[in-house]
Amino acid sequence: MSVSVTVPAASPLAAPVRTVFFVSDGTGITAETFGHSVLSQFELRFKQFRLPFIDTMDKARDAVNRINETFEREGNRPIVFSTLVNAEMSELVRKSNGMHMDLIKTFVDPLEQELGVKSTHTIGRNHNITDSEEYKNRIEAINFSLAHDDGQTNKNLDGADVILVGVSRSGKTPTSLYLAMQYGIKAANYPLIPEDFERGKLPGGLLEFKHKIFGLTIAPDRLAEVRNERRPGSKYAAIENCRYEINEAESMMHREGIRWMSSTTKSIEEIAATILQEIKVEKRFY
Amino acid sequence: MSVSVTVPAASPLAAPVRTVFFVSDGTGITAETFGHSVLSQFELRFKQFRLPFIDTMDKARDAVNRINETFEREGNRPIVFSTLVNAEMSELVRKSNGMHMDLIKTFVDPLEQELGVKSTHTIGRNHNITDSEEYKNRIEAINFSLAHDDGQTNKNLDGADVILVGVSRSGKTPTSLYLAMQYGIKAANYPLIPEDFERGKLPGGLLEFKHKIFGLTIAPDRLAEVRNERRPGSKYAAIENCRYEINEAESMMHREGIRWMSSTTKSIEEIAATILQEIKVEKRFY
Repeated sequence: MSVSVTVPAASPLAAPVRTVFFVSDGTGITAETFGHSVLSQFELRFKQFRLPFIDTMDKARDAVNRINETFEREGNRPIVFSTLVNAEMSELVRKSNGMHMDLIKTFVDPLEQELGVKSTHTIGRNHNITDSEEYKNRIEAINFSLAHDDGQTNKNLDGADVILVGVSRSGKTPTSLYLAMQYGIKAANYPLIPEDFERGKLPGGLLEFKHKIFGLTIAPDRLAEVRNERRPGSKYAAIENCRYEINEAESMMHREGIRWMSSTTKSIEEIAATILQEIKVEKRFY
Repeated sequence: MSVSVTVPAASPLAAPVRTVFFVSDGTGITAETFGHSVLSQFELRFKQFRLPFIDTMDKARDAVNRINETFEREGNRPIVFSTLVNAEMSELVRKSNGMHMDLIKTFVDPLEQELGVKSTHTIGRNHNITDSEEYKNRIEAINFSLAHDDGQTNKNLDGADVILVGVSRSGKTPTSLYLAMQYGIKAANYPLIPEDFERGKLPGGLLEFKHKIFGLTIAPDRLAEVRNERRPGSKYAAIENCRYEINEAESMMHREGIRWMSSTTKSIEEIAATILQEIKVEKRFY
């Protein structure tokens, strides 16, 4: 998934060069997230399958069969990202006709040495994670961010970790939800609308929380594109209107001394990571 | 973060044994997600810091300084999970006084061999990812799931990939948003409320989409606990009422032939991965 390439990785024309399996005794999210990062290094298409919850020898054998069948059909070794912790199951999968990338053995074994303790062999399981403080914080943050989406309420804003502002469709909502879901950050968000620009003031009730406000802006042509998908041909989506709103929003943020960034070419993950760095909330501490 | 231990990993009493850094030229999410999985293998507390967007030699030197200062202060090697792609920066960080876990070198180099092509050295960057179909699908799915949260509308349900049903606080909303955000799945959700139980029928408009419905249930005592945090002492949260609602909801799902699972001890990630396996939507294909 990268750019500046002649044949983009996701080109619908290119045939997948290789099949990839994400094998895990848990959700497979770790194997998949990590595998995607590694595969994104290659300008190739991959056919990808998740094999989660592989927690018995029978299921491990099924996984091996799928890997081997793929090898026979395609004539190339499938690539296998594995977070299997159980040694016996892991060994079984390792002996398949896949190229085995064992995330556990590679990193957990050296860490056991370094830390001088044995690992618990439960990777990805997260048993009873739902009882942990961190998990409860995440759920609470999701509820908070949902309740405070799009300026729905001014209640409990003192509990917010960050308050995002920006014009409609600048990326506030997905970013707020991502901050909550991934990092347990309580993120409220407020649209900046023409009425605010006419008054020349931030939406009511926000002033006292200015230190927590973070602005999102976006290039007018990109904004027009996004808004046109929603309401084609509307005044709302017209490039002149987008230019006006962005210009006013940026002036207001500048005037009020609000930190801000452009979301134009950034993914939700990148916007969220940038905001996190700026607001310096450090909630996670295990 | 695991269970069945005498001293839980997240015990507020235990002092962190070691400092961990997640070093990346991008958001650091890959390094962090992967690092968490590895560290969760140990029943220890870690002090964790993100060092994202390390994309110049100066920033790499700053990172090294932080790692070395930590080593001197604590007398133990910090653990460094790195996804730095730039060879020079990576080498600099490798030479710090940390224990270096290099996610790139370990897996990308063997893959270059296997695939017979060079990698693009852009891990975690995701430049212009916002232009990709997959990214647009994710944003669209988030908007869909938000608009269809808590039975807000029956419009466009034919566009849903899955429709979650369950009593209030059974985990529908966070699961819907996670499915959208992580997997680009359009997930609507509907509460099952006492009126539905009295009528003995699914909420109106859902019947024709029965094949897409997936139910969530939860143990009554857990439900009472969660609801009591919201509305302490209410009838809504009373254990008898929770037992009644759960009993009715499970009977209804059974009667209607709806697939369902219990969310009681499962994280959002686990619920989402299970649903995905059941509904067999395979959207991602690069």
